[in-house]
Amino acid sequence: MASFKPVIVVAGARVGGTGAATALAFARKGYSVALIARGAQDLSDAVNGLVTTGYDAKAFAVPSYSAASIASVFQSIQDQFPSPQYSIRAALYNASHRVRKPFLETSVDDLRAAQETVVEGPFAFAQHVIRIFKNNSIDRITGKRGILIFTGSSVSVSTSSSTSVASATKWGMRALSQSLAKEFGKDNIHVTHAVIDGLIDTPLMRSNFTDTNMAQNEDVRLNAEDVANAYVYLLEQPRSSWTWEFDLRPAHQEW
Amino acid sequence: MASFKPVIVVAGARVGGTGAATALAFARKGYSVALIARGAQDLSDAVNGLVTTGYDAKAFAVPSYSAASIASVFQSIQDQFPSPQYSIRAALYNASHRVRKPFLETSVDDLRAAQETVVEGPFAFAQHVIRIFKNNSIDRITGKRGILIFTGSSVSVSTSSSTSVASATKWGMRALSQSLAKEFGKDNIHVTHAVIDGLIDTPLMRSNFTDTNMAQNEDVRLNAEDVANAYVYLLEQPRSSWTWEFDLRPAHQEW
Amino acid sequence: MASFKPVIVVAGARVGGTGAATALAFARKGYSVALIARGAQDLSDAVNGLVTTGYDAKAFAVPSYSAASIASVFQSIQDQFPSPQYSIRAALYNASHRVRKPFLETSVDDLRAAQETVVEGPFAFAQHVIRIFKNNSIDRITGKRGILIFTGSSVSVSTSSSTSVASATKWGMRALSQSLAKEFGKDNIHVTHAVIDGLIDTPLMRSNFTDTNMAQNEDVRLNAEDVANAYVYLLEQPRSSWTWEFDLRPAHQEW
Amino acid sequence: MASFKPVIVVAGARVGGTGAATALAFARKGYSVALIARGAQDLSDAVNGLVTTGYDAKAFAVPSYSAASIASVFQSIQDQFPSPQYSIRAALYNASHRVRKPFLETSVDDLRAAQETVVEGPFAFAQHVIRIFKNNSIDRITGKRGILIFTGSSVSVSTSSSTSVASATKWGMRALSQSLAKEFGKDNIHVTHAVIDGLIDTPLMRSNFTDTNMAQNEDVRLNAEDVANAYVYLLEQPRSSWTWEFDLRPAHQEW
Repeated sequence: MASFKPVIVVAGARVGGTGAATALAFARKGYSVALIARGAQDLSDAVNGLVTTGYDAKAFAVPSYSAASIASVFQSIQDQFPSPQYSIRAALYNASHRVRKPFLETSVDDLRAAQETVVEGPFAFAQHVIRIFKNNSIDRITGKRGILIFTGSSVSVSTSSSTSVASATKWGMRALSQSLAKEFGKDNIHVTHAVIDGLIDTPLMRSNFTDTNMAQNEDVRLNAEDVANAYVYLLEQPRSSWTWEFDLRPAHQEW
Repeated sequence: MASFKPVIVVAGARVGGTGAATALAFARKGYSVALIARGAQDLSDAVNGLVTTGYDAKAFAVPSYSAASIASVFQSIQDQFPSPQYSIRAALYNASHRVRKPFLETSVDDLRAAQETVVEGPFAFAQHVIRIFKNNSIDRITGKRGILIFTGSSVSVSTSSSTSVASATKWGMRALSQSLAKEFGKDNIHVTHAVIDGLIDTPLMRSNFTDTNMAQNEDVRLNAEDVANAYVYLLEQPRSSWTWEFDLRPAHQEW
Repeated sequence: MASFKPVIVVAGARVGGTGAATALAFARKGYSVALIARGAQDLSDAVNGLVTTGYDAKAFAVPSYSAASIASVFQSIQDQFPSPQYSIRAALYNASHRVRKPFLETSVDDLRAAQETVVEGPFAFAQHVIRIFKNNSIDRITGKRGILIFTGSSVSVSTSSSTSVASATKWGMRALSQSLAKEFGKDNIHVTHAVIDGLIDTPLMRSNFTDTNMAQNEDVRLNAEDVANAYVYLLEQPRSSWTWEFDLRPAHQEW
Repeated sequence: MASFKPVIVVAGARVGGTGAATALAFARKGYSVALIARGAQDLSDAVNGLVTTGYDAKAFAVPSYSAASIASVFQSIQDQFPSPQYSIRAALYNASHRVRKPFLETSVDDLRAAQETVVEGPFAFAQHVIRIFKNNSIDRITGKRGILIFTGSSVSVSTSSSTSVASATKWGMRALSQSLAKEFGKDNIHVTHAVIDGLIDTPLMRSNFTDTNMAQNEDVRLNAEDVANAYVYLLEQPRSSWTWEFDLRPAHQEW
């Protein structure tokens, strides 16, 4: 076995959401966790949830997902999880920015905020992650120096009359992920993109459910733990069979 | 636990290939196996491989993947794996038809042969499988009455100057699978499509490898067992998070 | 100017529809017309419409769009429009087969009928057309030995729960057209595919319009003459700028 | 006929390029031209080329394609082409930003520069154009209050190992254009996207051609005038048959 402790860096985590669920799922696989998020309280709750259960997790609050914030937070993460005791071998970019508006009501600030979180953030995050991965050893089983997962959504592959900014940025992140998968596969770095198509059952979502069927019926909504397990599956894919992209949706989802 | 023995039906199996590897992987999960193939010797070898290891497998030779052949073979399968002791709960359409030729050298018989195996076969196979699945109970964990997997390839999503017939039929099978995923999700039937992008390491392929790197290097070729495990992963996806499509390729594959 | 009379071969023509409108539009550009169709009366009406207006058009009835029918009809067309007085330089495959049914109510005969008209027909049609084109001179302006246009529809690029057969065959025709565009561009043969997204205003459609808005409002329905003019545009595209695919839909179409 | 003079606004114009060629082609159709560009000399040359030929064209230099620059330049354009004598009825976003680098050599400034020109610029341009179009009358023939054309490229629909930033931004612009086409079709505003696949023969390109075949052979390179004519075709599409997207490539282009 490896003499180092593997680390997953998760950008975008809220209690009950995909980021926190992925952190927990990787922690169960022996990973230490570096959780990055904007909301300090949410972040603290998510990390405490892991720590009180006995896992090794640290919080890294950021004011935004700008390249500067990402650079600064990676400095902290590498300080807190120093090499060679620790080795960053997994990374999830899960931060999102919700904007659904008629085009003419969308301001350039809306666009820039979406670009910062959905394109610049992933770009900067990927640069730090891939530079770190390139120095890693190759895992004998999975053939990986590391895995970089991007969380996309239905808007990553479609458009509608209220998604001009959402689609313009999410299509961008998807293209970025595909380019990186092609560029760094030969370096044994696994880059993947998940198209999450449907509502994820989070406390926030649940508070908005007027439809009790939605809250109780796993056929119609995504479960954050199940998405997290899907990401663990990607982690464990062996070198002969890597996935760049898959979609995940509830059994009864219309699409 | 279920009181029945689950069965997987695999169409298209050759020793060392994806179909046979999937049969073995599902057998390890407790499935009985109905193996359908054209080549009687290949089929017999594949089934014997399973039976001598202690698994429950039966051979169903077909002259072709025409609708009539499929109808006939499903009659035999249901006779050999009678309900309610057995329950067909998984199906893989893995039969393929290789044709790469300049368009003007391709005959209508080439087209029809490809259509029979790549479109009519999957169509008829899906009709039998879905009719059976609709009468199944829903698995409590996965939310499935059954899973139907189609093996696609890079030609399923691309074209080139020598793939007029290959692409015309493979795009068709992909469209079929997406339509079925949309139509039968609400019935808790999971339909998926795998884009296998790269050479699978089979005895047949290996005999053609002039490049020894190819034979020895898992970074550059697909491993049938790994593809099979990916299919097991799809089988086990819970109802909140089903995948319609993923791609699988070796770490170093250029695409 | 050329010393020959250019000919367009149109497969699939009904009075008031896209095929007949394209025949007329090309006739106005100096083309003789070979109209192929299944319904003898429809075909005769469409040809008479051209002939009585002074254009050179001939009817070629076919029992089906099987490869054998296509082979036979091309023999007749070449007899009726003999070289070198005539030169077949344009071809439109416009035959369609409407099938929208729940998958389990769709028979293998439904599938085969769709395959014959939507895949085998285009395949055979393209083989005859491209063989003829390869012997043509290159037009100085457009750089073309000939143009081959396929009429697709929204189902050519999408699926839904009632389009298993429609999508499986239409995606196939689209893939065929893309393969051919890639294979024969270097021979100066222009292959294109039109995604016609919306209802075309034909007498048949109009008789079904309960919505009078549909009949009177060009913002909400396609006009066959406008589609025909779009095909003329493709014909006239110069060698530096050929289109493989475009979509055409009414201004107000939801998509 | 209309009592106003129609105006086309072109963002991104260099002598010999697509923007300047489109300006000329629309001028020939009776349009006045507002040319926006960064390079003052290039811009001046392009406008002079039009003015000395007798067309009505004005130069609008911008320091960048930021939203602020776009806002400022539209103020000037509306001052110079005042309503109701003039009516802005066509707009081409043709500005581009070339960046092809290995991902790890790409800086966040590279990304931001690309985002500014390829996403923010089109976003701001579209907002001004669509607000203006919404107040226009509907053209009786084409059913349009105006047409907004985006120039894309092969990178708009593909990725490769050196196009992480190029694809991330170009996919974004394509998504924006599709969203707008869906949102504003019902307002009779025509939004289109051209995938220009191949090298355009410009003076700049020509100076780099080591391959004289490239310079002399229209089968292997795009001609700016032909692209411009394709844009005129989109302008003239009638309301029943609008195109959102088409590809344009030389006859012999490999793709």
